[in-house]
Amino acid sequence: METQTWIQISADSDFSYHNIPFGVFSTACNKEDARPATRVGDFIIDLREAERQGLLNGELFSKLSHKVFQGKTLNSFMELTRPHWQEVRRTIQSLLHVGSALDTNKELQSKVVIPYTDKIILHLPAQIGDYTDFYSSYTHAYNVGVMFRGKDNAIQPNWLHIPIGYHGRASTVVVSGTDIHRPRGQAKPPTAEKPIFTECKRLDYELEVAAFVGGPANKMGEPVKVDSAEDRVFGFVLMNDWSARDHQAWEYVPLGPFNGKNFGTTISPWIVTLDALEMFRVDLEPQNPEPLPYLKEKRHTSWDINLEVYLHADGNTKADILTKSNYKYMYWNIAQQLTHHSVGGCILNAGDLLASGTISGPQKHEFGSMLELSWQGTEKIALSEGKERTFIQDNDQIIMKGFAEKNGIRVGFGECAGKVLPALPENKYY
Amino acid sequence: METQTWIQISADSDFSYHNIPFGVFSTACNKEDARPATRVGDFIIDLREAERQGLLNGELFSKLSHKVFQGKTLNSFMELTRPHWQEVRRTIQSLLHVGSALDTNKELQSKVVIPYTDKIILHLPAQIGDYTDFYSSYTHAYNVGVMFRGKDNAIQPNWLHIPIGYHGRASTVVVSGTDIHRPRGQAKPPTAEKPIFTECKRLDYELEVAAFVGGPANKMGEPVKVDSAEDRVFGFVLMNDWSARDHQAWEYVPLGPFNGKNFGTTISPWIVTLDALEMFRVDLEPQNPEPLPYLKEKRHTSWDINLEVYLHADGNTKADILTKSNYKYMYWNIAQQLTHHSVGGCILNAGDLLASGTISGPQKHEFGSMLELSWQGTEKIALSEGKERTFIQDNDQIIMKGFAEKNGIRVGFGECAGKVLPALPENKYY
Ligand SMILES: [Ca+2]
Ligand SMILES: [Ca+2]
Ligand SMILES: [Mg+2]
Ligand SMILES: [Mg+2]
Ligand code: NI
Repeated sequence: METQTWIQISADSDFSYHNIPFGVFSTACNKEDARPATRVGDFIIDLREAERQGLLNGELFSKLSHKVFQGKTLNSFMELTRPHWQEVRRTIQSLLHVGSALDTNKELQSKVVIPYTDKIILHLPAQIGDYTDFYSSYTHAYNVGVMFRGKDNAIQPNWLHIPIGYHGRASTVVVSGTDIHRPRGQAKPPTAEKPIFTECKRLDYELEVAAFVGGPANKMGEPVKVDSAEDRVFGFVLMNDWSARDHQAWEYVPLGPFNGKNFGTTISPWIVTLDALEMFRVDLEPQNPEPLPYLKEKRHTSWDINLEVYLHADGNTKADILTKSNYKYMYWNIAQQLTHHSVGGCILNAGDLLASGTISGPQKHEFGSMLELSWQGTEKIALSEGKERTFIQDNDQIIMKGFAEKNGIRVGFGECAGKVLPALPENKYY
Repeated sequence: METQTWIQISADSDFSYHNIPFGVFSTACNKEDARPATRVGDFIIDLREAERQGLLNGELFSKLSHKVFQGKTLNSFMELTRPHWQEVRRTIQSLLHVGSALDTNKELQSKVVIPYTDKIILHLPAQIGDYTDFYSSYTHAYNVGVMFRGKDNAIQPNWLHIPIGYHGRASTVVVSGTDIHRPRGQAKPPTAEKPIFTECKRLDYELEVAAFVGGPANKMGEPVKVDSAEDRVFGFVLMNDWSARDHQAWEYVPLGPFNGKNFGTTISPWIVTLDALEMFRVDLEPQNPEPLPYLKEKRHTSWDINLEVYLHADGNTKADILTKSNYKYMYWNIAQQLTHHSVGGCILNAGDLLASGTISGPQKHEFGSMLELSWQGTEKIALSEGKERTFIQDNDQIIMKGFAEKNGIRVGFGECAGKVLPALPENKYY
């Protein structure tokens, strides 16, 4: 990267000059004072302050009649259009150039630029209106299908025609670093006659990439066409769709996952934009059978983003890597998911979250859940320091990472991490 | 009703002295100026103005450090506690008494009391964070089971143990009077090899009662116990869960209904509180098998609320009644639904919507959907003026009504109505 910036950015930072992701932070001295920001290397740029100081002075922003970075979330910014998002990214990049106002005016710099330390608290970047989870990785759908229905019926007839998805629970989407209690609920052990009330014995992660919707909402009844669907994507985060497999297995017929999923979903704090990711775009294989016309794109693509999942076992000194996958392992891409979501007339609002579904690659070390890695708990997953797992145990921590790299440019997501706390005592329930 | 009120309330009004429901309105001269209100007979009482004028002066309200009726939704009020909701109802009732400040001070009255005319516009009463739809009427689950799996497997093994539910779409919950476009989407006709892209041919209603959640949110990870669950219920509305049966049938395995439901859900505008309904509470039959301890109540009840669905066929001069059901036809009640929803630790926020599921009674005229009434389209439903239907046609209007009556006291919901507009032209899709 040859651009000269006055902030030192190490070559292995996820938050390069090229990235400029969007998030929301506060500081330990005033936790409640959450405000929008970007991150560059080991610094935060406070966008509320930058806007107040008149630094976001591009052509489109100069024409706005209202400020957009003064709230506690990014929603006002996300409601604008792609050209607005692009302009802010370019404006911030120019502020990083040697000799810019932010470089030379040290008083200004002290107000707007904040070192990234452990005093920084990161928040959910948006108020999420609705959260949807898709199921669009072929290998994941195939693996789950083999386990539950056998090889011959692994892929359901509708899967190859529909980007299958379900409505998830927005109220428990939390930011990286939030602890999750092991849930209690109903499960029916294979040999039992009746269900039991039990703490989850098969607590799992699901490695996902989630898109934040942006742009003006479509009118109720009106679909978003597939070739313009990316204009409604503000950017991406990593997502851990925590899953209680035993609860889910007992409840999901016929209306889908409910308590097996709604106890918690963790996302990474920084939203990486499509502009930052454009250079990592890759073509996907043509789909067979051909999609129906409303899902047929001029070009069928995803992005080459390396995805990793680590498990830091309780008591261990370091984390072990369990999954190495990639966002290019999508059968249905985000444009098709978003268009399908809107085709009946469903309103998609800025701030809505659309998750990819578990992303598994074809090889075993690329499987995006412990359900697949341990093949329903039948195979132990070996960890370091003599430990092993089939599912997540109490006080284990799950850490997801994601990054794209090409021609010496790195664009990363940071971490999506969460620790599992023990279930609450039974007297909390009845 | 012997209480003397200075507002004339006709004996057949849904909005009796006893009711005092909560909603949000504006007037045609200033549509955007939405504010909380109650309705009494043919009048609206503007609660924003009542609060400004110091009329909501009960003990609990006098202690509040902030105003709660100054926003465009009821959320701030719903976030308080049951005793606050009860106090406001009593305060409003006392303002209706002959000789009250609102009776005698005509200038005050002219500011706070507004005749209910066609200039009144009703809005969604709350900002809905998350919307959940249950499936808790035995007859409905049985009917659907018989149609899809035959008599012997009609009720799924989990249904008798779990108040089965799924996460729905909050962005398209609309208030009574909003037109709904017939959705397009994927369907697979029984004889076809592949799915087709088609306008919905089996558009249906589902008669439901939905609860608005109130009270302080439970902490993430912490359940709501079943015997205190009603403290988290602010009140009820009628709900039409519009359903595209052909789309739903093709998409719902394995993750549940998605586009078959998310194109629109209509609710009635006035939230009727549990206090207004208390006198209509009825015991339900003991559940067999016995629920797990976390779902076992001291007393298993619902409310005797008459529910009706009318179809006003395109071109007809009047509406025909299709369904006469009752909210007492619930197997799992709202307390059990809410507790089950929270048992894994899911946060329930004030303003969330929890719907009952289609409420069908045991007799044929009590079935709560056209799917059941026409038995999957195999039997014509006769209407007046020579018309007949199996499912909803373009420009048909569906009108739901609900009311409880006992000892000369009537508490009603008003209407939950919506008209179906034709599907958009295909060139809107690709
Ligand atoms: Ca998932
Ligand atoms: Ca329903
Ligand atoms: Mg989840
Ligand atoms: Mg619906
Ligand atoms: Ni329209």
